[in-house]
Amino acid sequence: MASSDDLTSLPTPPSCTADFCLIPLGTPTASVSKEVAEVQRLLKKSGLNYSMHSAGTTTEGSWDEVMKVIGQCHAMLHRNGVVRIQSDIRVGTRTDKKQGFRDKVEAVERLLEEDA
Amino acid sequence: MASSDDLTSLPTPPSCTADFCLIPLGTPTASVSKEVAEVQRLLKKSGLNYSMHSAGTTTEGSWDEVMKVIGQCHAMLHRNGVVRIQSDIRVGTRTDKKQGFRDKVEAVERLLEEDA
Amino acid sequence: MASSDDLTSLPTPPSCTADFCLIPLGTPTASVSKEVAEVQRLLKKSGLNYSMHSAGTTTEGSWDEVMKVIGQCHAMLHRNGVVRIQSDIRVGTRTDKKQGFRDKVEAVERLLEEDA
Amino acid sequence: MASSDDLTSLPTPPSCTADFCLIPLGTPTASVSKEVAEVQRLLKKSGLNYSMHSAGTTTEGSWDEVMKVIGQCHAMLHRNGVVRIQSDIRVGTRTDKKQGFRDKVEAVERLLEEDA
Repeated sequence: MASSDDLTSLPTPPSCTADFCLIPLGTPTASVSKEVAEVQRLLKKSGLNYSMHSAGTTTEGSWDEVMKVIGQCHAMLHRNGVVRIQSDIRVGTRTDKKQGFRDKVEAVERLLEEDA
Repeated sequence: MASSDDLTSLPTPPSCTADFCLIPLGTPTASVSKEVAEVQRLLKKSGLNYSMHSAGTTTEGSWDEVMKVIGQCHAMLHRNGVVRIQSDIRVGTRTDKKQGFRDKVEAVERLLEEDA
Repeated sequence: MASSDDLTSLPTPPSCTADFCLIPLGTPTASVSKEVAEVQRLLKKSGLNYSMHSAGTTTEGSWDEVMKVIGQCHAMLHRNGVVRIQSDIRVGTRTDKKQGFRDKVEAVERLLEEDA
Repeated sequence: MASSDDLTSLPTPPSCTADFCLIPLGTPTASVSKEVAEVQRLLKKSGLNYSMHSAGTTTEGSWDEVMKVIGQCHAMLHRNGVVRIQSDIRVGTRTDKKQGFRDKVEAVERLLEEDA
């Protein structure tokens, strides 16, 4: 068990995978397509790997890079007039191996192919 | 504002989209591929629409059908020896239109195509 | 490894703990206090144990009871005019012991008391 | 609509509320009390406001401070030997008012008191 004396200077993880679903509140319509498109544009500019699916967007990079870009998505939408934003973020880190988010799907698909 | 007198007999929503990420705890390895493959097999048998991505699995159907199948995923893995399971579920319902989970991605992609 | 032949008839877990955060979309204001208060009233009528905190509401019971009441919260708010609702649900099940949601906090607090 | 040209230099939000639930994977036991206690100790040292409940820990501060401390929780547990960690984070930002996480519960409780 590590001492907690120096915890406040611990570096954040060098890599992570984060999947986030961002929801604007108090907007005139129930549609979020416009906001999600803005998020995709910002991610493209960020240079990080990312992939959109129907329930969120997955991205990967260092912990600080990934969290910064999600925070910038909030800031961008606030600048566009959205007064309140809530995101759900599923973030994973691991030290046993380097695994990109696309590798995870392939690992499962290989197991399922054995069924055939 | 509706009265809350008859709330306990309210029917659950006739349709929903749910994205869930299931995590087994206390397993010998940090890999979850085997468990996720089992989940895909159960979903296939359920007859519901579903789609796996790197951060979870999206499915759609009536609220009761969808929640039942996620509960069955927990039950199946418990039966296979996993003693504790935690899932994160993002579930959405709407009354303004019928929108399948694949339609949501297309709506954003149409907006992004206009950039080109 | 269990056979998957009879999976569609598997019963859902007899007990679970679920923490949910419900977000109405397309409402005139960014405040959600009114909707959250309605949710608390419905939970009170349900007879399930529950506890509100600043980021959601925790409840416990059988899988089917818990998911039914969260679905009824969606249905109730739709009936009150909210056209779209998104919830994030963290749900846990375990077979190694019976642990109410209040016990989990106490287990951590006992460990922290040893620091003093 | 803002131009996206300068998006990569956008500052992250000056304040946010985040509720996170951290799950270690591949640990020998299904209990997470020890890890959650470690998280509480680190939060105490961080100087941020925080509050533990049965389904997670809520904290508030600037976006960068809050995300840094959650990343440090991952890093600390990795240093203690946990090879894989998954967190679910619910994070909210708003520009219409400054609201601490304790204020949110009080706003709902005031509405419920009117029922009595």
